[in-house]
Amino acid sequence: MPGIPRYTLYYSPGAASMVVHLALLEMGVPYERVLVDFDSKAQHDPGYLKLNPHGVVPTLLIDGRPFVESVALLLILVECHPESNLAPAPGSEERNAFYQWIAYLGNTLGANYRFWFYPGDLGEKEHTPSVCAALQRNIEKVWDRLEAHLAASGPYLLGDRFSVADLQLTMYMRWSRKMPRTALEWPSLKTLADRVRARDSWKKLYEIEGLIEW
Amino acid sequence: MPGIPRYTLYYSPGAASMVVHLALLEMGVPYERVLVDFDSKAQHDPGYLKLNPHGVVPTLLIDGRPFVESVALLLILVECHPESNLAPAPGSEERNAFYQWIAYLGNTLGANYRFWFYPGDLGEKEHTPSVCAALQRNIEKVWDRLEAHLAASGPYLLGDRFSVADLQLTMYMRWSRKMPRTALEWPSLKTLADRVRARDSWKKLYEIEGLIEW
Repeated sequence: MPGIPRYTLYYSPGAASMVVHLALLEMGVPYERVLVDFDSKAQHDPGYLKLNPHGVVPTLLIDGRPFVESVALLLILVECHPESNLAPAPGSEERNAFYQWIAYLGNTLGANYRFWFYPGDLGEKEHTPSVCAALQRNIEKVWDRLEAHLAASGPYLLGDRFSVADLQLTMYMRWSRKMPRTALEWPSLKTLADRVRARDSWKKLYEIEGLIEW
Repeated sequence: MPGIPRYTLYYSPGAASMVVHLALLEMGVPYERVLVDFDSKAQHDPGYLKLNPHGVVPTLLIDGRPFVESVALLLILVECHPESNLAPAPGSEERNAFYQWIAYLGNTLGANYRFWFYPGDLGEKEHTPSVCAALQRNIEKVWDRLEAHLAASGPYLLGDRFSVADLQLTMYMRWSRKMPRTALEWPSLKTLADRVRARDSWKKLYEIEGLIEW
């Protein structure tokens, strides 16, 4: 058995690094953390851009080598720490669904939130009301779909089995808290979020990252 | 050893199903295919929406159960068919980079193309010139980053090692062919695409899907 890799997480409180941070806490593995201070635009510092050319978080150094993309980092971590039981094992019945949900959440919620929070990515200082409404619709369509799935087959994305995909989903739900309709209005989504928010990892993360608001 | 699963691919020529189709051809496993005719809006048929609630391709039935999201389907297929050698094995040195690239391509190119090709997702009939320019910039930023990586560490995304991530990248490159600057203008990207386009799987896919244009 190889030893545990050395991990260094570059994070910003409540940003996309949050799900990777939660996974590390769930796994109980040692890691260092480096705050990337968005207020001083530290994500655009030349030193950080060498690690993460797009100037986003998270970046995870694994034995000194930088890796990016939260979906990839989750897949890397669960593969390296199967004893944490945060994903179905390869070959198990739920494995395909696990891959599907983790990719689906990133590709739908991740993509739409990026534009929601960064109008500059669409060449705008602020979104027009019609673009806002469209992005909101795209995101709510995902809540609808997930609600149907969870109501039929919850309480977690993989039924009775908790996984890092639920951490990812709850992070994305949290990002909706200032939207016209928050994800907590969908009852089965709220049930899932309540379970995730009751976990030690969630509470510990709030302390470390200094988060207050849901 | 369990037997090979039964695969049925729902596809539209040249769409995001293309990379899954290429992977199936590379693996040489038996599969059935079902054309989803976008011209007659078959992706919105109630029967299809039961398999794929967002009305997109690909959908892959695996032993009769539907799974979606091309990134997930690639991960499922390489895990099920390790003998095809289309991804680094778990625990190997390139494994983390494989996860990173496959997630990165989906999250950057996949997301921006979605809005590029579907102005309706931003509530528009047609993009304004400034939104067009912004999406183009986002996509070209990815070509820049990949060019730097491939020039230093190519010819494939994982160096000398071909993987399904290269199929995914070449599909996304192909989608740029009518943009103001096509991805083939980036020399190391063109080298990679030339290698992928010379593969039997690419030629066979063009025949089956009836594709003509690069």
